[in-house]
Amino acid sequence: MAPKRQTMRAVVCRQPGPVSVLELREDMPIPVPGPGQVLVKVLAFGINRAEMYTRQGHSPVSFPRILGIEFVGEVAGYPPGTTERPFPIGTKVATCMGGLGRQIPGSYAEYTCVPPQNLRIVPEIHSISTAEIAALPEMLQTTWGSLTAGLDLQPGESLLVRGATSSIGICALQIAWKLGAGRIAGTTRQTTRIDLLTRYGADEVFIDDGDVADQSGPVFDKVLELGGTTTLRDSVKCARPGGVVCMTGIQGGEWEMENFNPAADLPGRVRLCAYSGQTADFLEMPWEELVRDVDEGRIRMPVTTYALDSIQATHWMMEEGGGGMKMVVDLDM
Amino acid sequence: MAPKRQTMRAVVCRQPGPVSVLELREDMPIPVPGPGQVLVKVLAFGINRAEMYTRQGHSPVSFPRILGIEFVGEVAGYPPGTTERPFPIGTKVATCMGGLGRQIPGSYAEYTCVPPQNLRIVPEIHSISTAEIAALPEMLQTTWGSLTAGLDLQPGESLLVRGATSSIGICALQIAWKLGAGRIAGTTRQTTRIDLLTRYGADEVFIDDGDVADQSGPVFDKVLELGGTTTLRDSVKCARPGGVVCMTGIQGGEWEMENFNPAADLPGRVRLCAYSGQTADFLEMPWEELVRDVDEGRIRMPVTTYALDSIQATHWMMEEGGGGMKMVVDLDM
Repeated sequence: MAPKRQTMRAVVCRQPGPVSVLELREDMPIPVPGPGQVLVKVLAFGINRAEMYTRQGHSPVSFPRILGIEFVGEVAGYPPGTTERPFPIGTKVATCMGGLGRQIPGSYAEYTCVPPQNLRIVPEIHSISTAEIAALPEMLQTTWGSLTAGLDLQPGESLLVRGATSSIGICALQIAWKLGAGRIAGTTRQTTRIDLLTRYGADEVFIDDGDVADQSGPVFDKVLELGGTTTLRDSVKCARPGGVVCMTGIQGGEWEMENFNPAADLPGRVRLCAYSGQTADFLEMPWEELVRDVDEGRIRMPVTTYALDSIQATHWMMEEGGGGMKMVVDLDM
Repeated sequence: MAPKRQTMRAVVCRQPGPVSVLELREDMPIPVPGPGQVLVKVLAFGINRAEMYTRQGHSPVSFPRILGIEFVGEVAGYPPGTTERPFPIGTKVATCMGGLGRQIPGSYAEYTCVPPQNLRIVPEIHSISTAEIAALPEMLQTTWGSLTAGLDLQPGESLLVRGATSSIGICALQIAWKLGAGRIAGTTRQTTRIDLLTRYGADEVFIDDGDVADQSGPVFDKVLELGGTTTLRDSVKCARPGGVVCMTGIQGGEWEMENFNPAADLPGRVRLCAYSGQTADFLEMPWEELVRDVDEGRIRMPVTTYALDSIQATHWMMEEGGGGMKMVVDLDM
């Protein structure tokens, strides 16, 4: 399992810029795990909006840099002299967050090094591929974290997912169902997507013309805002008094709200929070159970798979919207 | 009890501007209650920051206008032919909000007209004056509403009051104690005010140098932000994960936060809400019980009393800070 060669294929982001700054290299040195790290052979990794923002220069990272904040892989080596080896060589593992692709080299590569305490074991799967598992770490962590840590969604509570056709949105509809939510609603800007949302569990779909609150009224116990600050002023009006709105992700491309006036912008008793992924949530969530849910069809995630040399195309599609399909790169393709 | 004269003394705010726009008139017509209104003889009224903002032109009201959003008074008359009279003539009542001093002429006058359903009966008092009661409607409503509707403060929970030396702050320390809060902390910018806060129930006082979170850490279950948006970014860092921050009032003078970035500005799992007074909260709170608390010394509110011809002085002092003393105008002085 330990690499016999010294070099690997990896995608290097040379500098902030358009998709053309992503360069597929064949001759990158295979990294050597330092103390407290484990070497992992990457099998597949998901493509994330966060990586696009880093590439565009919106994250405080230095360049050149190997991007990629999640992967599924196999444990391939420990530093010489490591006596405590929590995972045998060859164990199939997954991770996300933990500085991957930001503070430490990322997963757009055949090998990478991570702290073993950030890894979770991939249970045996029967119906889905490794690439389909690679779609899950960041998506499940973000969705699970938003609905539990962020919104504290309780059985029977109603939920509105604003921007529900993204992969996180589709995942959220299903995780909400798993958590026992009552009425589950989603929004989309396109009438052609109504069926998609219904298929993934939405009891009700609102066409997002910018004014969803006018259609729904202030009725939802919980609102998951996936559209960023551009729709937030309207989303908080969809929550009932005492309801909670969690802003996660920024499909709208706007991180900031100009001239936020809490007393005017937040309806009485509505509470606003934000969810930014935390490694702790990935480590605490029922990962193996959720993977089995996917393997056995209780949670369905549309995935499209690409080879490593299509990396520029995946980022281009992400810039164009990405809508509804989690993109995964399979290193075996 | 019904007025024998046709004119009354009243303070008219001629136009938006400095304190000199407040004009004491002796010849204003006594208002005539319309359908669904009751005429009240004003005995005393509190001075509020909201009235200063209206005078300064920050509220969407037309001028000239009689300001004043609360009072204690006596029911003085009903429209001719009114058969349903919920309060006998002479009943001592109090009110706040409900459009008083904004949509309808306010309480800076000897008489005013309000909807009877917004009135609450003033219970018999033994130790305090009518003027001291006049300090309470808006203050108790704002404090009670912020701590219950806004923060949902539960017995045993810890509370930080940011900007605790204002009259609302001092009231909040005591209402929090009444509600069974655990550790109660307050902030002040001046070391000379530490004793004041301790006297009114603060278990702990932080000197506000703009960076209270550095001193406290993210530990409070609930945070009441009375400083407005100028201190809000720091106050949310004083709340524990899962804690709630309620912004009420704007001592800092800033209503808006430029470039609010929920994902960066709100720590994980911290929830933000805003409390703007609602008449419903005044009508639902245990008003008579709270008045008895004040009458029997369980809640102590420092009040300074002025005559109607000192109205400009009260607004001037409010502009200068007002600190810690609720100002009341007594029509009998």
